[in-house]
Amino acid sequence: MSNSYGNLFRITTFGESHGAAVGVIVDGCPAGLDISLEEIQHALDRRRPGQSDITTPRKEEDKVTILSGVFEGKTTGTPIAMVVNNKDQHSHDYSHIAQAFRPSHADYTYTAKYGTRDHRGGGRSSARETVARVAAGALAAKLLQHHGITVQGYVSQVGSIKLQKPYQELDLSQIDSNKVRCPDGATAARMIGVVEEARDSLDTIGGVVSCVVKGVPAGLGEPVFDKLHAELGKAMLSINAVKGFEYGSGFEGVKMRGSEHNDQFYTDEQGNIRTRTNHSGGIQGGISNGQDIYFNVAFKPVATILQPQTTINDAGEEITLQGKGRHDPCVLPRAVPIVDAMAALVIADFLLRQKANKV
Amino acid sequence: MSNSYGNLFRITTFGESHGAAVGVIVDGCPAGLDISLEEIQHALDRRRPGQSDITTPRKEEDKVTILSGVFEGKTTGTPIAMVVNNKDQHSHDYSHIAQAFRPSHADYTYTAKYGTRDHRGGGRSSARETVARVAAGALAAKLLQHHGITVQGYVSQVGSIKLQKPYQELDLSQIDSNKVRCPDGATAARMIGVVEEARDSLDTIGGVVSCVVKGVPAGLGEPVFDKLHAELGKAMLSINAVKGFEYGSGFEGVKMRGSEHNDQFYTDEQGNIRTRTNHSGGIQGGISNGQDIYFNVAFKPVATILQPQTTINDAGEEITLQGKGRHDPCVLPRAVPIVDAMAALVIADFLLRQKANKV
Amino acid sequence: MSNSYGNLFRITTFGESHGAAVGVIVDGCPAGLDISLEEIQHALDRRRPGQSDITTPRKEEDKVTILSGVFEGKTTGTPIAMVVNNKDQHSHDYSHIAQAFRPSHADYTYTAKYGTRDHRGGGRSSARETVARVAAGALAAKLLQHHGITVQGYVSQVGSIKLQKPYQELDLSQIDSNKVRCPDGATAARMIGVVEEARDSLDTIGGVVSCVVKGVPAGLGEPVFDKLHAELGKAMLSINAVKGFEYGSGFEGVKMRGSEHNDQFYTDEQGNIRTRTNHSGGIQGGISNGQDIYFNVAFKPVATILQPQTTINDAGEEITLQGKGRHDPCVLPRAVPIVDAMAALVIADFLLRQKANKV
Amino acid sequence: MSNSYGNLFRITTFGESHGAAVGVIVDGCPAGLDISLEEIQHALDRRRPGQSDITTPRKEEDKVTILSGVFEGKTTGTPIAMVVNNKDQHSHDYSHIAQAFRPSHADYTYTAKYGTRDHRGGGRSSARETVARVAAGALAAKLLQHHGITVQGYVSQVGSIKLQKPYQELDLSQIDSNKVRCPDGATAARMIGVVEEARDSLDTIGGVVSCVVKGVPAGLGEPVFDKLHAELGKAMLSINAVKGFEYGSGFEGVKMRGSEHNDQFYTDEQGNIRTRTNHSGGIQGGISNGQDIYFNVAFKPVATILQPQTTINDAGEEITLQGKGRHDPCVLPRAVPIVDAMAALVIADFLLRQKANKV
Repeated sequence: MSNSYGNLFRITTFGESHGAAVGVIVDGCPAGLDISLEEIQHALDRRRPGQSDITTPRKEEDKVTILSGVFEGKTTGTPIAMVVNNKDQHSHDYSHIAQAFRPSHADYTYTAKYGTRDHRGGGRSSARETVARVAAGALAAKLLQHHGITVQGYVSQVGSIKLQKPYQELDLSQIDSNKVRCPDGATAARMIGVVEEARDSLDTIGGVVSCVVKGVPAGLGEPVFDKLHAELGKAMLSINAVKGFEYGSGFEGVKMRGSEHNDQFYTDEQGNIRTRTNHSGGIQGGISNGQDIYFNVAFKPVATILQPQTTINDAGEEITLQGKGRHDPCVLPRAVPIVDAMAALVIADFLLRQKANKV
Repeated sequence: MSNSYGNLFRITTFGESHGAAVGVIVDGCPAGLDISLEEIQHALDRRRPGQSDITTPRKEEDKVTILSGVFEGKTTGTPIAMVVNNKDQHSHDYSHIAQAFRPSHADYTYTAKYGTRDHRGGGRSSARETVARVAAGALAAKLLQHHGITVQGYVSQVGSIKLQKPYQELDLSQIDSNKVRCPDGATAARMIGVVEEARDSLDTIGGVVSCVVKGVPAGLGEPVFDKLHAELGKAMLSINAVKGFEYGSGFEGVKMRGSEHNDQFYTDEQGNIRTRTNHSGGIQGGISNGQDIYFNVAFKPVATILQPQTTINDAGEEITLQGKGRHDPCVLPRAVPIVDAMAALVIADFLLRQKANKV
Repeated sequence: MSNSYGNLFRITTFGESHGAAVGVIVDGCPAGLDISLEEIQHALDRRRPGQSDITTPRKEEDKVTILSGVFEGKTTGTPIAMVVNNKDQHSHDYSHIAQAFRPSHADYTYTAKYGTRDHRGGGRSSARETVARVAAGALAAKLLQHHGITVQGYVSQVGSIKLQKPYQELDLSQIDSNKVRCPDGATAARMIGVVEEARDSLDTIGGVVSCVVKGVPAGLGEPVFDKLHAELGKAMLSINAVKGFEYGSGFEGVKMRGSEHNDQFYTDEQGNIRTRTNHSGGIQGGISNGQDIYFNVAFKPVATILQPQTTINDAGEEITLQGKGRHDPCVLPRAVPIVDAMAALVIADFLLRQKANKV
Repeated sequence: MSNSYGNLFRITTFGESHGAAVGVIVDGCPAGLDISLEEIQHALDRRRPGQSDITTPRKEEDKVTILSGVFEGKTTGTPIAMVVNNKDQHSHDYSHIAQAFRPSHADYTYTAKYGTRDHRGGGRSSARETVARVAAGALAAKLLQHHGITVQGYVSQVGSIKLQKPYQELDLSQIDSNKVRCPDGATAARMIGVVEEARDSLDTIGGVVSCVVKGVPAGLGEPVFDKLHAELGKAMLSINAVKGFEYGSGFEGVKMRGSEHNDQFYTDEQGNIRTRTNHSGGIQGGISNGQDIYFNVAFKPVATILQPQTTINDAGEEITLQGKGRHDPCVLPRAVPIVDAMAALVIADFLLRQKANKV
């Protein structure tokens, strides 16, 4: 069950980096939703390798096929299976790591867990698994769109370059206007410089994706263990390379006094209940309050570097490993659609769960 | 199901702040574990209100009763139900908030979700629910103890006072040596000052709990969605007032290069596989690697303050609300046993899950 | 998790026959449902021992207490915990079976599974566990009542005495008019004779409970694995002593030709879609079709008999065991409210699940 | 989630009768199991249409492809996706039923549930879905084989022709020796006659599959709701056309006295604990006792008949429907591998669950 996420809008993914295919079954997507293959493909294209010179130059088309659950352009309520065949496999690239435990990769931990592993390109631990999430997330986003909800992730930090503006001062329509997916042009340029520098040093660099979810009605999220932000946190932390999650005032908020931090309620001119500040990040007691939801996700630098590193092999012997092949110097630009997908899946699940809460 | 946590070691909690009782059913605790009521009570005593002059002066004994699942001092494999009756209810204290939507509380969101709420002391949204977690966590800790695993949480930040030493330089046996539960005496004294200042200003202050888990064997955690740190994150974010979670290098790690961040493997003199640094926080690819697991949890300042605040009532009308009663100026000292409990529950669940991974 | 049932309307039970209490947490009961303690107690009273001279003469009051989840007479959406203390324990009655593996009881299998067991009165394997189901079922029945759905179980067979009339020819308001809970007076009299004969022979006898569910709208039940009748079957088979389940035409239907068995659709004068026959038992493809749902549940004779039996003890040695105490010669009359409860829980869960199936 | 089955050994299926493919993801299959494509294909071949003149003459090769989770001939612990493409679709055959609600099919109930349906060949409600179960069941059977457990289903009744011998008197190696899969040659001949008669009358006939599971160790099955027989019952009832389930003494057992029905324990010469009779069907208190598990599954006659039938269309108007195409006059012979698959999946899941029951 560790390959499934969601309670009512539930996905189950499969596939290794260099196996035949990766894919997903979406179970619980309501019937009657309009679906076009193009929308799903569009989401995958945002995640695709080779989309710019600051991502891996691997060319993978990642063409998605829908095998079930859609009839005459609409969902039928039955499981929607989607598959992306693995084309650009180059399995020979990986023979040199068959016995190696690469530093800060999952080679050792998979072996410790299962007594075996598919070493080709990281097997199941590869970020290629997120293809399945992005395809499923595109379906979830369609459901959200039907309810007037939008999810917008963007890169807010690369290395030490941090976007200083809060999301309210940004033009989020500009996220895809540059290759690093930061909606502030000047900051984007500096971020790109940092990525290029890392790339040219045969190194990698980390960063932060911020995400804003607008239009969520008050009442989503389940109290106690399945709080809205707890599920968002789990979903984000389940993405490869993520090291931290915070929402609303986050880690900075701990320095505040209650009298500063509390979000005062008022009734606006349309009679809507709103808050004057939003340190709560749109969530109180684990349940959405109708204000914008926003959160940050920290990504470590990619572990695969093109420099020699000392490590051990599966016999415990010290070896020197030299990364090769085509890898991302910075995962952030391609992480944006993955964050978007997981956020959409979380909200879609809570939308369906909330339907069961009234007599 | 939002009141349950865990897959194989699974807890389900119940109870409102001012109802008859709070409690928990633990389902899946293996048979044959020695259990004494004292151990569970000890954990509850660490969480108990009124334990020092920097926590709420409410006097609640929180005496736990075991109703099932233990026979002749040992678990039997059947569900273990534990109940703590609510003694110090003072329901009249809360009549003034029956119609109010308190700022940054869950009054409004519960009403939006359910169309109703038990307003007495926050009802189900009260941190009193964590009594049930702590009782269940004490059972989980017993299972961990059997496997040589320890969980040690401590306060590492209050307001802007931040413990500068990493956990390796601390004497974790000193956590309970002072009332703020910071194992560094000098820092503890400064933190206590900050809490007292907040209390005396009729205000509240936030902070950070750090936690170290030692002795976890390599191989725990499930890849993809149920990564070990993703479940830890969800578990921590499900605690009242938590705003953020990070593990290993966390948000700071995003500034690092891959060549700095990667944890080099080596084989120690006893033939154990280890890493020279531990930016990974003991987890790689979502699976424990045998090194120490460590993480930080951010808590916002308590929302209940003893100052007048402007807000609205459930008719949408502006009102002024004056907090009264006995509340915590800083939740951090009492949050430590809750963080410990949730961490123990997460690890216990993965211990059981890992048993099913071999033919 | 084996002590939980249901997906959205979910119960978790606890308690041993001779422990402190038995009880249940109902998680997912929608907010706003009127609940009175009397209704729950009424259901428990139908299950209570000592209600007639053909059931066990044990006197257990089985008074239920609600600990949470109900505020001012209505459900709040939070978990509803209910507890029944064990009064009439007589633990000394059971010392003679502490080491024995009673024939066709669960003493041996619990020991094989857990390496230990609470031998007092069968511990967790006792039918006393069904107290919790009946209390929870009463809540489910309230939800069904709100939707115009009724569940009516009755005894249709005791030993070889079988009620020949189909349910359509019975007056189901007469179920509780006699102590065996068969709505046909003449048959009831014969059944009572059979039970008395078994009782007077220090023996026990089996039987069948039939159940009719009316008012279920078309569309409940989930295709594939969670078919409506598959969940009904699981729920019934989970009741102590049940050996079989059939719905609609059941085992007799296998002898029919398709041309006889098929239920022809027509539109009635009110424009409702109906079927001329109902061999389908109100369920087609695992989903309700709006017709009456009906099914049969087979109960074996109670294993505890007041005659000497040869068996072994936990050292594997042959022993002679003489049942004593106060036991049911026939479980059927008291099984009716348990069947009703489980059926209500199944339908309530599907009612909530169906809410999530539309965009 | 209604398209998933199992807790730790968990399958999720997808696919419509006339969509692109049907398939399954198996999540939780332990690492290190030897798998050959041939074994899976062999199981599918037993289910395949067109295998004899008493099944549908449709020619479907049902060639299975493994997309993930197997590396160098062994399972890796990651999800195993298997796909069977739909070849012989003949979608034009089904245009005549696009608007019809076929009697005793799921056309009406799917429409009531989802507001839409894929009408081609029954869409998701088609028994073609069981291809996925059989493929997954073959994996489960490999795990069982590793533990010395065998599952053997056979046809024990067709129409009124009932195999009189208990399974102990049958040579179960002869199950596949005839086309009806009844291991008793003389009875098989009579059953085949009944099927041919039904087929030649353009009609269909029901029957019973019996199944024996040998080698299950004592201790499998979880008490209370997930009793071993309750899950077997759910799994069997989830198969298309199933109307009833009984195990051990079943519906006949209700006529017995406790003194007859109780299975007396003894210790055999090898020191094994056994029972002299096995009315319990190898399960006591929901947990296996080490004796053979056996049960019966009732199948109704196939709903598709080649005779004109009166029904209604989705406008509620009366129409006459004439079945055409190539259909099974009796589903029983092809149901045997499906019963085997579901039984194997149930036992495999409990094998894994039992691993978590000891400290």
